[in-house]
Amino acid sequence: MAKDKRTAFFISDGTGLTVEAIGHSLLAQFRDQQVEQVTIPYVDSAEKLQLVLKRIEQAAVESGLQPIIITSIVSNEIRRQLHQSSALMLDVFENYLTPLANLFGRDPAQSVNVSHGIADDRRYSERIEAVHFAMDNDDGRRVREFDRADLILVGVSRSGKTPTCLYLALQFGLRAANYPITEEDMDSTTLPKILRPYRHKLFGLTIDPERLMSIRQERRANSRYASLEQCEFEVRQVEQMLRRAQIPCLNATQLSVEELATRLMSQAGIERRIG
Amino acid sequence: MAKDKRTAFFISDGTGLTVEAIGHSLLAQFRDQQVEQVTIPYVDSAEKLQLVLKRIEQAAVESGLQPIIITSIVSNEIRRQLHQSSALMLDVFENYLTPLANLFGRDPAQSVNVSHGIADDRRYSERIEAVHFAMDNDDGRRVREFDRADLILVGVSRSGKTPTCLYLALQFGLRAANYPITEEDMDSTTLPKILRPYRHKLFGLTIDPERLMSIRQERRANSRYASLEQCEFEVRQVEQMLRRAQIPCLNATQLSVEELATRLMSQAGIERRIG
Repeated sequence: MAKDKRTAFFISDGTGLTVEAIGHSLLAQFRDQQVEQVTIPYVDSAEKLQLVLKRIEQAAVESGLQPIIITSIVSNEIRRQLHQSSALMLDVFENYLTPLANLFGRDPAQSVNVSHGIADDRRYSERIEAVHFAMDNDDGRRVREFDRADLILVGVSRSGKTPTCLYLALQFGLRAANYPITEEDMDSTTLPKILRPYRHKLFGLTIDPERLMSIRQERRANSRYASLEQCEFEVRQVEQMLRRAQIPCLNATQLSVEELATRLMSQAGIERRIG
Repeated sequence: MAKDKRTAFFISDGTGLTVEAIGHSLLAQFRDQQVEQVTIPYVDSAEKLQLVLKRIEQAAVESGLQPIIITSIVSNEIRRQLHQSSALMLDVFENYLTPLANLFGRDPAQSVNVSHGIADDRRYSERIEAVHFAMDNDDGRRVREFDRADLILVGVSRSGKTPTCLYLALQFGLRAANYPITEEDMDSTTLPKILRPYRHKLFGLTIDPERLMSIRQERRANSRYASLEQCEFEVRQVEQMLRRAQIPCLNATQLSVEELATRLMSQAGIERRIG
């Protein structure tokens, strides 16, 4: 805990992923504020709660600033005790469970937060299957499985295809293959022959040449591969190719993997398999 | 929209991932209710809003049940219009932005939800680097890179190592390798020689033999590999091996990838690199 820096604690009885995402969203609306962000998952016992409360008071004393708690704890007892700390307490559940209980005409289950639980075997299998599909079909490795793909990402090397495919698999259970357009494919601006039968499954990723250069420099500094000239050439050729073939396309330069995945699903009208 | 089934709309001006996670958590407290869940991301214009409002009213009419809106839209104008629909409106931001604004002594930015934005180049690079590390070091492929690993998952084939490594990379920027304990390693219950120098980085995944069998059956039905006998043998050997070597361990049977990743970080005291 740094001095003069406020701490926000994201406290959960589960993975903490949901409450952390809410915390990031909320704090992003106050970007000029220096806030140390700490996620504490699996707070599901009185002993763990005592350690957390100590940490909160310590942060308050050391920084001289009131800490923030954002929590989605389900247990009434643990929430009550958190409310008694000196922090500003934002309770994600309390404002919403009551109106929902009224709507449904029944009390909430008071069961520990299970939003990231295994849910069911089918969901698990779809997901694992999708992850292995993405791994096996990375970098055009196994074109013969393209028949089974939900979508095929195409673009130059290091345009963000691999992480996007893996994210699509993990988050949405989609079978996403990817195919790198390499220099040999760039002699003409027509789609590589191998991709033509799958035109309706293709989605292009493009990227600004300067950004591509900086990504490639980290991988192979001072190589021809990472030169601005080469990046400009490849991006131009691939953009022409995608335009001619009327393949839908996103520019990855300013987008995170989450944004790429959700935007392309939205643009191409691809429905998730799990979720 | 099914008849007699209520619809919950998760509406966002960004990816929708945060508000969807909140929605899943909240509805998980009312498991006996049949609720159709629909995520609508990137609602950032008056035109898109009109389509969304139509869809909501349609769901109300077709089901005869009041829909639910859970939203994290930042624009006051769009929120105002959503409030006028016939749905039960749960606004994730409105209850929290005001207390935070009071604490910080300034107004929120009113900028579109950026919780899953690219944030900064360093974060992007760490993440991509971690994803490629996980891919390259999957299945014990490249033991020589274990020096650079933040952790190394060990366990029998199909115990969940690969998806967990990829999730650790995408979500937390961690460099996670994995090494499958194969039959050759099982002649004794001492740690394979190749893993010994990395003892402090090892983390074991185990799994109930019945569950393992069912996962393996989907991959290679009726094989020896997927037989209960073989699964029982492998799990027993690996559990003994891990216990003897005092490697920390999690049972993956009832856990999702998110839970495995966050629990093992918490148990092994591994800090995220990004997030």
